[in-house]
This record gives sequence, C-alpha cells and structure tokens, in this order.
Amino acid sequence: MPREIGVGFLGAGVVGSGALDVLLRKRERLGAAIGAELAVRRVLVRDPGKPRPVALPPGLLTTDPSDVLEDPAVEVVVELLGGEEPARSYIAAALKAGKHVVTANKEVIAKHGAELLRLAAAHDVNLFYEASVAGGIPIIDTLRHDLVANEILAIQAIINGTTNFILTEMGAGRDYAEALREAQRLGYAEADPRNDVEGVDAAYKLAILATLAFHADVRPSDLVHVGITRLAARDFRYAAEMGYTVKLVAWARLADGKIEGAVYPMLISQGHQLASVRGSFNAIVLDGDQIDKLMLYGRGAGAGPTASAVVADLCRVAHNVVRGVADRVAIGNRDRSVRSFGELTSRFYFRMQVIDRPGVLARIARVLGDHRISIASVIQKETDETARVAELVIMTHVASERQVEEALAEIRALDVVRDVPSFIRVER
Amino acid sequence: MPREIGVGFLGAGVVGSGALDVLLRKRERLGAAIGAELAVRRVLVRDPGKPRPVALPPGLLTTDPSDVLEDPAVEVVVELLGGEEPARSYIAAALKAGKHVVTANKEVIAKHGAELLRLAAAHDVNLFYEASVAGGIPIIDTLRHDLVANEILAIQAIINGTTNFILTEMGAGRDYAEALREAQRLGYAEADPRNDVEGVDAAYKLAILATLAFHADVRPSDLVHVGITRLAARDFRYAAEMGYTVKLVAWARLADGKIEGAVYPMLISQGHQLASVRGSFNAIVLDGDQIDKLMLYGRGAGAGPTASAVVADLCRVAHNVVRGVADRVAIGNRDRSVRSFGELTSRFYFRMQVIDRPGVLARIARVLGDHRISIASVIQKETDETARVAELVIMTHVASERQVEEALAEIRALDVVRDVPSFIRVER
Repeated sequence: MPREIGVGFLGAGVVGSGALDVLLRKRERLGAAIGAELAVRRVLVRDPGKPRPVALPPGLLTTDPSDVLEDPAVEVVVELLGGEEPARSYIAAALKAGKHVVTANKEVIAKHGAELLRLAAAHDVNLFYEASVAGGIPIIDTLRHDLVANEILAIQAIINGTTNFILTEMGAGRDYAEALREAQRLGYAEADPRNDVEGVDAAYKLAILATLAFHADVRPSDLVHVGITRLAARDFRYAAEMGYTVKLVAWARLADGKIEGAVYPMLISQGHQLASVRGSFNAIVLDGDQIDKLMLYGRGAGAGPTASAVVADLCRVAHNVVRGVADRVAIGNRDRSVRSFGELTSRFYFRMQVIDRPGVLARIARVLGDHRISIASVIQKETDETARVAELVIMTHVASERQVEEALAEIRALDVVRDVPSFIRVER
Repeated sequence: MPREIGVGFLGAGVVGSGALDVLLRKRERLGAAIGAELAVRRVLVRDPGKPRPVALPPGLLTTDPSDVLEDPAVEVVVELLGGEEPARSYIAAALKAGKHVVTANKEVIAKHGAELLRLAAAHDVNLFYEASVAGGIPIIDTLRHDLVANEILAIQAIINGTTNFILTEMGAGRDYAEALREAQRLGYAEADPRNDVEGVDAAYKLAILATLAFHADVRPSDLVHVGITRLAARDFRYAAEMGYTVKLVAWARLADGKIEGAVYPMLISQGHQLASVRGSFNAIVLDGDQIDKLMLYGRGAGAGPTASAVVADLCRVAHNVVRGVADRVAIGNRDRSVRSFGELTSRFYFRMQVIDRPGVLARIARVLGDHRISIASVIQKETDETARVAELVIMTHVASERQVEEALAEIRALDVVRDVPSFIRVER
C-alpha cells in the first residue's frame, strides 16, 4: 500500500476544478510517478450547490476554511482563491500549522512571497508557486533549478494573455473598445478588466520573476506599470509601417549592479522573438551569461495549463514528503536596489496632433533638444486639411523617462500642439 | 563548514572546460544555493599538456580513468567524453561503484539509457542527463517534472543546430556544399559531419525525448532518420513560393496507442512556430493534454549553454546528496510499440525532371492514382528548352511512406522521367 498524502483545496473554480479533475482521473499514474497517492480530503468553496465541471466524491465540499486549515489529515493545502485576503492569511495559517502549500496566487506571492517563504523555512515545509506566473509554462522551476549556473542578465516577457489578445486584435485593425469586448466575450477578459489592462497583473508576475532571477527581493511597488487603454489602432498601423509591432512587455534587467524593470506597451521590431506571440499566448525570453537566450512559450492561463502547473507542484511536494525532505526557496540575499522609473531609458515613439503651419516642427525639435533628446526620425502622417491639423510621428534615440516627461509637459503646452495622444517606448 | 561533495570529470574539452570554469568561478554562489561545496577532485584528459580555456589547480589532471572511477573521494562523475565506448563502460562502472553520474552523452543515453537507469536505481544513485538534448534548453527536467500532469501527445523539434544552420543558409540561397563549408568554418559542423547531416544525432535526441514523453522505451533503432544532403537550393525557392520553409524536424507522437516518430527534412508552413527558428538555435514544441502547446527555444550547443545544463544537474545531485536522497527516472513502464516507418503518413513534395512532351503528367498521375495517392497541386517549373526537359513540382495529400516508396519506384522507371531529385515530407 503506497503512503497517502492528504490534500486540501481552498477554492474550486476554473483552475481548482481543473486540478481536481487531473488528480481524480490520473490518480494511478501520478501515484506511480511520485511513490505516494494524493488523496483529496476537503475542498473549500463558497457555494456547495453550484454545478462544477468535475464530479467530486460527496462530503468533500465545505464552506468553513478551518475544515481545511485545521484538519491534521490535510498535509498539503492548495490555495486557488486568488486576491490578497483572505488568501495570504490562509497560506500563513497553513504554513504555521506545518502544512505544505501550493498556490497559484501571483498577488500574494508578489507582495508577500519573501515573508511567506521565510515562514515555510521556519516550519520546514514547502511553499511552491509555479502556477502563479504564465500558467502552463514552467518558468519558476526553470529559474529556480535549471538556470542555477547562470547570472540572469535580462527578462523580457509577455505574461498577460488578456492584453496580448487585445493587442493582437488591435494589430488586425480593431480599436481598443471593440477588442476588449471580444476578449470579454471569449472569457479572456473579466467584466472589470482593470487589473489586466492597466498592467497590474503583469507587474505582479514580473516582481516574482525578477526576485528569482536577480536573487533580490523585488516587490510590485518597485515596478511602474503602464496599461494599454490609451493605445489607438492608428499607432499599430504606424508601428507596422516602421517594421514594429506593439506588445505589453514586462521586462527587467541588471544594469551597473542595479535592477531595472517596468511593464509598459512597447514597439518591438517584427523580427523580435516576442513579436510573433499572438492571441492569449505567453512567452518569456531570458538572457543568461551561460545560456545566451532561452525562450519559453505557451498558454499562460486557462484550466488545463494552470492545473498542469499546480499538479506538478503537488507532485514535487509529495515526492519530498515521501522522502522526508523540503525544498527551500532562498529570497533576497543579494543587496541590489531597483532603479527609479525616471532613470529608465529607452527610445520613444510620439504621435502628436499639431497645427499645420510652417515652423511647428522646429519648435517641437527645440524643446526635445533642450532636454537633450535626439530625434531619430520624423514622419508627417495624415493631415486633416479643413481643420489644418497635421499628425506628426517622431521616433527618438535613447532618452530617460524623466527627460521625456519634462519635454512632453513643455510640448503639450505649446500653442501649436493640439494633443499628444500617444507616446510609446521602443525596444532599445 | 559546508559539506564538500567530490566531483570527477571524464573529459575536459569544450563543454568540460565550460563546466569547470563555472564551478570554479561561481563556487561560492553555487555552494549557497545547494548547501554544499562542489569540489573538483580529478579530471581525466587525453593530453595533460594541451592548453585549455580554464585554469585548473595543478594535480587535477590525469590520463588514467581509474583515478576518477575508483577514487572514493569522487562522489559524482561528470562524463563528457562523447561517443558510445568507453563512455558507456565508464558510466556503468561509476554507478556500480555507488557514484552519481551526470552526462551529456546522447548516444549512450539513447542506446543504453534504460539499462543504465536501472543500474543507478539498483545502486541508489542519481543518473542525470539534461545536457544530452538541446544544450541550454531544460527539456529533460520539463518532461520529467514540470509536465507530470500531462499526457504528452506530440513532440516536434529542431534539435540539431548544425543542420539548422545549414538549412537557414540554404534558405538564403546558398547550396548545400557551400553552407556546409560555412558551418565548418564557424565551428558548427565537424570535419566529418555525417552524424549531424544524416540525422543520426537528432535521432539519438528524439529517442531520449520520446522515451520520457511517452513513458516507453524508445531506441534510436526504432526511428528512421533521413538527412539533408540531398536537398537543393531550388527546393527552398519552390517551398518559399508555396509558403513553406524546409527544416530538419525530429518528431514523435501518439496515434491510436502506438508511437510514431522519425527525423527528416520537412516543409513546414511559414506560420509554424518552428519556421522562425534560425541559425544554430534549437526549439522543441510539445503538445500535452493539459498544457495545449509549449515551446522551448534556445541554444542547443556550445560551451556556455551545455555547461549550464551540466552544472544544473550537478547541483540537483548535490542537493540530493546533502539530503541523503536520490531521484529515480522510471523508464518504459508503458506497453507501447513504435509504428514501422512504412506506415507513417504525411503529405509529400516531389520535384521531378521529365521529358517536356504531352501526356507525361497523365502517366505520372496514373502511377500515383494506382497507389491511391491524391495530388493536391502540380506546378510546372523552369523548363530547359534545348534539352526538352521540364521540372515538375507535385504536392500530394496525405499518403503513407510505403505507398510513396512504391509509387516512386514506378515513376522513376517511366521512360519520360529523367530523375526525381527531391521528395520531401510536408507538415500534415
């Protein structure tokens, strides 16, 4: 008789049902792989009467978290509630009770990962979170184990499928509102899409990746995020004409011993590995001193891919339990600070509406020059003859966020400038 | 004082020197990560006087394998000799002596992996081989651990950088001989390139991947390999006109409970994930029932990437040694046979030189029809007016290798057919 390992679930929504389905359907095969049987003991849900896509044995469901957190027969807690609270408190309570924890919660890990991992170490239990970033893509395990010989120099990632779907649609000519509605219709975007479209979700995931990659404690509050809501379909057309595509890129790198990073829409050249990541797919490109470049590409969300990551973590925990050991994730042992957003540099794309009159470009160029921003190219695009308004697209050489912010304030104040509807960072 | 783990190297060529360099330069950081210090005790080389890119402490080098294999202070043996023998015997000797083994040897693992893994289990030691497939891409660990919740349905891979470099050059208009010379000049191809250009190397790697993916014992002899030496620059031009690119694809899949697989040049559509894998890069696309698609892309060879994989394995071994446990790799517990090559199906591209005379196409079409091969499209390409020879390119619908082999023999025997210089499989 193989040893049984008791598992308790907090949450049985899309991902939870997917993971439970795998555990029930593949029980025997997983048992053979890990040398123990994963036995689901309790499942916390809000509404036990709600129909679910997985048939659970009767008596498993409960609405009382203590049935999971305080049951000594539950050795591993799988947290799939999402959101900061009560998820964080439940995870902490489970660890303190000597239970291992597997979570898909990017917000809790991004904001409180270091504390929770220390708590896990103090209680000699495992805390795994592969499913918190990029669903079915094994990026956490890759950073923790497979790239141990590398100094990771840079991360560039598309780690929010909702926005990548919307941007792919916009690249095909739709406007933002229309693309968002399509994403909501297909279940890629929530009714309240703010966390995704404002870049908050991607910033959580980037903080988790940067913390592992750079061996430093990077929090979401260290990383500025800019959303996609102000992008216009015409920016995609102009970008395409210049050989670029627009993606919401989460990036971080080491530069002169400091960590730099942000989440924002970016013009990347059409030959870039991330340019061909379409629809709701995710991809992460890593630069390491040994591996050069490594890209992982796959499904970043959905029941199947996320359940794959949750069950892989469960098997890692179970394998450790069988052998009586625990893995530690060491966090933040490097003294590396995060550079402030104003100091970050890139090239920039501006789209401006200006009065169609001689001397306008000279005035804008002078402001940019005053702030030591060099212009790489200027294109005068469509002009509305009757309104005497011209559209200018300007690409700059590398400049800092602060330089650009200051220059933009002055440019916006010029009487010849009607509006600067877009400014987008461009791959260096 | 952290525990020291003694490491012995068999071989200190490009990869060995790369791994030794990492171990010496990053000693402290790796030690902190694994809770033990990896101490290099002996290094077997052919010529101790040869200059090496890494500065080793004096006294480490030896030309006697027993200095590594019989030294009780060596707990882990890193085998980087390559080739079948004596590498296989040394690995077996090390395992029997209770030593853990890390190897980059695809030939030994592909041909003898199951026996060696059983030997490792019998002696309660680890045998790891991440570096044997795709260099810096962590595909072995991904299959072994990260995708445990999945039934893997299919693998499609570019896992030979030499041939992918040559094919990329041919796609840019070079002919085979010229592209091969360039690959040799850059160090991507060996003086005797047969193992690479004939697909042997890719078949070794595919056997290793299929064994893990399908939980069955797949040997290289189960997998037919076709090389790239008969491809002509004009095939690349015709392929491009039709929206395809030519790649050496190593693929395997489950179909009706049997394993199918082969290594051969293939026309894949330009939108396929593998189509944009250029130069010496490698990529592996996996289909799993939970994850849908996952692609891993990176450097498949070279000192840095391969050393990254070797050192990751060493750290896994060391971490296990510290905790007094060993990982098992279970092989071949599924009863799944490999379908014979003749039964494999795909679409086909033929390029034929025929006498330019009415009725020729009808005769060829009749032969194909007799073998129940349907034609999807026919294009008459360049014609040599003086020689009265025309070039025909025919694309078929799905047919089996056997059907095509039999039809081709008859077509070649037609008096109106001068030659069939190319036939290439096409992505289904």
